[in-house]
Amino acid sequence: MLKLYYAPGTCAVASHIALEEAGADYTTERLDFKTNQQNSPDYLAINPKGRVPSLVTDRGVLTETPAMLAYIAQVFPNAKLAPLDDVFALAQAQSFNSYLCSTVHVAHAHKLRGARWATEETSFADMKRMIPKSMGACFALIEQKMLRGPWVMGEQYTICDPYLYTLSLWLEGDGVDIKVTPKVADHFKRMSERPAVRKVTDTHKA
Amino acid sequence: MLKLYYAPGTCAVASHIALEEAGADYTTERLDFKTNQQNSPDYLAINPKGRVPSLVTDRGVLTETPAMLAYIAQVFPNAKLAPLDDVFALAQAQSFNSYLCSTVHVAHAHKLRGARWATEETSFADMKRMIPKSMGACFALIEQKMLRGPWVMGEQYTICDPYLYTLSLWLEGDGVDIKVTPKVADHFKRMSERPAVRKVTDTHKA
Repeated sequence: MLKLYYAPGTCAVASHIALEEAGADYTTERLDFKTNQQNSPDYLAINPKGRVPSLVTDRGVLTETPAMLAYIAQVFPNAKLAPLDDVFALAQAQSFNSYLCSTVHVAHAHKLRGARWATEETSFADMKRMIPKSMGACFALIEQKMLRGPWVMGEQYTICDPYLYTLSLWLEGDGVDIKVTPKVADHFKRMSERPAVRKVTDTHKA
Repeated sequence: MLKLYYAPGTCAVASHIALEEAGADYTTERLDFKTNQQNSPDYLAINPKGRVPSLVTDRGVLTETPAMLAYIAQVFPNAKLAPLDDVFALAQAQSFNSYLCSTVHVAHAHKLRGARWATEETSFADMKRMIPKSMGACFALIEQKMLRGPWVMGEQYTICDPYLYTLSLWLEGDGVDIKVTPKVADHFKRMSERPAVRKVTDTHKA
């Protein structure tokens, strides 16, 4: 049995959707960031980074969204969530997810997590002002060079799709109009209609 | 035939070492960041992100270090650079590399690449002052919770090792004393003695 630790609306949405799409037998545990539960001794024993998501398996704990997504795809091959038999195509999917975690999520994090990289209020305000531009640039690149359509990798729905959807959820709050990137907007709409995605987003909103 | 685009001393060192360890048949092309060659039209046609590394394969171009490292491990299975037959262990290796790309490399990047996330000189100076603390915290976590020894994943040398070595190369310039983390220091020394690593570091220094 798998267990996913998540906080609502965080990047944990991606792995949560993937588990649902895979038809996995899993439970969830919700953390409250407002009470700093992610830094409680109990949770730090599970994930010493004090971040979400964490996936508890019978072999141990996994962290980091790209690794968890690939793991879910491999453990549930019948769900066909990654091109497991094509080394190059799999690397392309991993490359996309790596871009999301190392560049897009990082750009977004400068809105509220500036204390990771600076100390002054003026720096935090400066970082916040940059968010629409930096997130807009990331999504322009995704629109023009990465998202093949209808899904990220083309005809096949993969682990790239819930991850892109998760970060697209942040655009409005980041001051980026999704309509500027029509392929991303179409992808977002198409994702929103999937039963697995509805179930997970309802859970995170509840 | 594979072709690696790199700039000296960047995170491209990791993939470069992995190619060498794998015994791959590959060529390299060096980019000059001082003349902004990574943003030349010729290179942007290869990698629209204007970053290194890029790996040109006969199927197309791959970018993003974690994806390239896993690809190299899969294409050259005899080199045993990843636990390809153990889904959980592979996910752990991918998780480690994902942490390096999304957190450790990002922390380091705030020293010279602040313009990605802010606009004011005062913010850049603030970010720079934080580097020893943020990079120190990352490597303390690696030391205490991640690096099993003698290699990252334990007895088996994997794609995690050249990546950790590459980021360890940055510690001195980032104002972090590697001796504070003795397991990382031992790993760094052990890596430095490998013929593949010597060859690549000599190439990057030349």
